[in-house]
Amino acid sequence: MNIILLEKQEVLGDRVFLADRRAKHLIKVLQVQSGDTVRVGIIDGPKGYGKVVALCGKYPFQVELEVQFAEEMAEKPPIDLLLALPRPIMLRRIFSQAAALGVGTIFITNAQRVEKSFWSATLLDEEEYRPHLLQGLEQAVDTRVPEVCVYERFKPFVEDVLPERIKEYSHLLIAHPGSAATLKGVIDERPDRILLAIGPEGGWINYEVDRFTECGFAAFSLGKRILKVDTAVVALHARLSERRESFS
Amino acid sequence: MNIILLEKQEVLGDRVFLADRRAKHLIKVLQVQSGDTVRVGIIDGPKGYGKVVALCGKYPFQVELEVQFAEEMAEKPPIDLLLALPRPIMLRRIFSQAAALGVGTIFITNAQRVEKSFWSATLLDEEEYRPHLLQGLEQAVDTRVPEVCVYERFKPFVEDVLPERIKEYSHLLIAHPGSAATLKGVIDERPDRILLAIGPEGGWINYEVDRFTECGFAAFSLGKRILKVDTAVVALHARLSERRESFS
Repeated sequence: MNIILLEKQEVLGDRVFLADRRAKHLIKVLQVQSGDTVRVGIIDGPKGYGKVVALCGKYPFQVELEVQFAEEMAEKPPIDLLLALPRPIMLRRIFSQAAALGVGTIFITNAQRVEKSFWSATLLDEEEYRPHLLQGLEQAVDTRVPEVCVYERFKPFVEDVLPERIKEYSHLLIAHPGSAATLKGVIDERPDRILLAIGPEGGWINYEVDRFTECGFAAFSLGKRILKVDTAVVALHARLSERRESFS
Repeated sequence: MNIILLEKQEVLGDRVFLADRRAKHLIKVLQVQSGDTVRVGIIDGPKGYGKVVALCGKYPFQVELEVQFAEEMAEKPPIDLLLALPRPIMLRRIFSQAAALGVGTIFITNAQRVEKSFWSATLLDEEEYRPHLLQGLEQAVDTRVPEVCVYERFKPFVEDVLPERIKEYSHLLIAHPGSAATLKGVIDERPDRILLAIGPEGGWINYEVDRFTECGFAAFSLGKRILKVDTAVVALHARLSERRESFS
């Protein structure tokens, strides 16, 4: 936890009172003392600093902070993800890693090779997935929560939702291990916003790739090695970022 | 498991008899039948194909393969890692993800911010870590096992071991969040072999960075976001690969 994230409603004037895992973390891990300053931020709001003005160092852990916010929320990251619903244990890791790396929106939809049982995962409830997003932000010192949009049916998603949403992107990419194109081939000028589609274990089927291609997505591959979806998300995000920064 | 990995000794003439998790995987997950062909490879040896010639589809699962190997082992990947010993649960994931992404050697050493207790992890025994490396290779369809070199004392490692080992690299890099340099700045021509040093949670201390710098390591950072070590390993490997391929 490299920043303490606060709900807007928790900030009363310039004071915040913590009595949950954040207080415990401040006391047990960061070992703060009265007078110490820590990084704080309002969820989907500005960042700043909090001075410890009072604390209870034993259970039940409590910390009172005097806070001020002088740093605007970071801009929306230039990369969005479109995922075929992964296995819940993997999706949990993807949520926190994607939030840590920085993504604007995570679209989740169906695909032929997604196991039907995954759709009953409680992790698809905002109440369940939000803590994993916040964990990633706490790691990366960010306050902007990625938007998560879930569409259980593939066809209505690609036919009705995607055509509207894709207008905001300069680059639409689909990672497809069969493709001969490289990332260098599909990004040959500085991208503005990128939407990256990543398939399920086993990949997209041809029908799905064709639908994306019709929407304007360009397929590319990173080579012969087959990666797990959670590794692929991080590796692809990093490669896109590197490619993007190479134009600056 | 996208390739069945075999110890050399298991191959008798052109036959292999499997009765462990590999047989179970072939039967339960891949649902092979007699006559089917699967990808096989000899650990640290060539890749090829195996034809199912006999099987027992119930517990105890057994599969007999007729194998042939026509594809040479892949070349040594151009990226090696130097890690401050991570928390065991993280190291386990790093072993399989690094093997999946492709690394030649993983050096592990100490650092000020490494918790002493990590050094008693059984995961540092080859018997314990090798299965995680093989898992990554099975995922990525590779047969070359990364070399793992563990040096528990930092000073003898950087003073006596590193000076010899670094001769094989064209680029020595140290990821250091404080640095102003970017990856683009430290790799301005096509690299041959790269050694990448990644610190513990909390980072290297200045003394450690100075020792690496004396050895010729160039520090760089990916920006302001702080990543967990396992996420950083994948993201940095991917960025190095993208940067490297941009010169081809």
